Amino acid sequence: MHLFNNKSYIPQLAIDCVIFGYQEKELKVLISKLNFKGDIYSLPSGFILQTEGIDEAAHRILKERTGISNIFLEHYKNFGQADRTNKAILENIIDKNKEYFVGDLMLSDADFEWITGRFVSLGYYALVDINKVTPTKTELDESMEWYNIHEIPIMMMDHNGMIEKALESLRLNLDTNIIVLNLLPETFTMKEVQDLYETIFEKEYARNNFQKKILELNVLERLEKKFTGASNKAPYLYRFKK
Amino acid sequence: MHLFNNKSYIPQLAIDCVIFGYQEKELKVLISKLNFKGDIYSLPSGFILQTEGIDEAAHRILKERTGISNIFLEHYKNFGQADRTNKAILENIIDKNKEYFVGDLMLSDADFEWITGRFVSLGYYALVDINKVTPTKTELDESMEWYNIHEIPIMMMDHNGMIEKALESLRLNLDTNIIVLNLLPETFTMKEVQDLYETIFEKEYARNNFQKKILELNVLERLEKKFTGASNKAPYLYRFKK
Repeated sequence: MHLFNNKSYIPQLAIDCVIFGYQEKELKVLISKLNFKGDIYSLPSGFILQTEGIDEAAHRILKERTGISNIFLEHYKNFGQADRTNKAILENIIDKNKEYFVGDLMLSDADFEWITGRFVSLGYYALVDINKVTPTKTELDESMEWYNIHEIPIMMMDHNGMIEKALESLRLNLDTNIIVLNLLPETFTMKEVQDLYETIFEKEYARNNFQKKILELNVLERLEKKFTGASNKAPYLYRFKK
Repeated sequence: MHLFNNKSYIPQLAIDCVIFGYQEKELKVLISKLNFKGDIYSLPSGFILQTEGIDEAAHRILKERTGISNIFLEHYKNFGQADRTNKAILENIIDKNKEYFVGDLMLSDADFEWITGRFVSLGYYALVDINKVTPTKTELDESMEWYNIHEIPIMMMDHNGMIEKALESLRLNLDTNIIVLNLLPETFTMKEVQDLYETIFEKEYARNNFQKKILELNVLERLEKKFTGASNKAPYLYRFKK
């Protein structure tokens, strides 16, 4: 029984998921410390079954590796330099018994050949509400945890660069792709939207300009204020237009 | 000697190029009629050498299949449903001698296995000035010609859908991606920009609103009018800011 090289998967093609988590003005990324010898940090990743579509594979991988399902997961970029392989990483942690994993998993010679070949990776990203998802790890992972965007460890292969590119895509799409904002609760204040933007873009917006900019996107509807006594200073609530 | 299944290429991974051509208010797409028996229409396509990056492969394929080089070629979408194969197409044109091609090319059994497997395709697109490029065909192509966007033939696999998705990406990026406009001559009038937009979006714009919208992108600089006698009605010329 081979872990990877079992003809079930498309060879040389991987999927890597950058899962951004937002919580109380903090932006984090979900990162696995792999169950290999040595400290190897990786995005939640996997391969594409011959019997499934690529988007389907991305959702399956994310579900299997993190427990997260039913989220808006979007392809943002392919990574495919000719020298893109993790051969150096795995060779670096090899011991005389060819035992790579800390746990009971074994990597056969065929697995090693397969997993150390050149891989083209399809990069997917998502933005989730950290309060709403509970990441779980698999036997491949020593841990699966949120890391603040400013405290990302040095990761395997080009995974640090993948996060940077995903953040660029997130920023680029934030204005046009309302789905990204779906991590907000059903109703929210303009300040909550502004907090989210300020966290992701790492800059401050003037309140009036920001409100104007967001309302011009024409995706929000303003709800009635709740009048509860002295709450005439309560902020308006908004929700996405149906 | 196998045409495809020779270990030089990454298996099950293809690149398809949607090359839009613009000329005198017409939008066209570059399409190959393949040198197979039967009328099989295809985008300029190819495979990725083990020794080259994916973007590099896209440029090589485009150069080899069409003669077009040094253009802004951008990835826009992957196509990867589980049942994405051209087995049905090739089986349909098979004759008792297993001769698929009209010309001297032979497809070995191993080639047939390889080429009829499941393929994930990386979709690239570009927009070029038809006057500036001269498409050429290879031995794989019976012809390589421009087709008006409204007169695209029925193509192999999902290639018609690839063109639709590429057109969506072109429209989506037109406002933000100034490179797309680089098919214009070095200096141009606002009317030339408007003609381009109207062709691509298939709608008319009010002249003043259009000019306002484009100038707000803040990517153009207005040049001095040439005063040549009665030319005080000559339009302003623009060029991209350096």
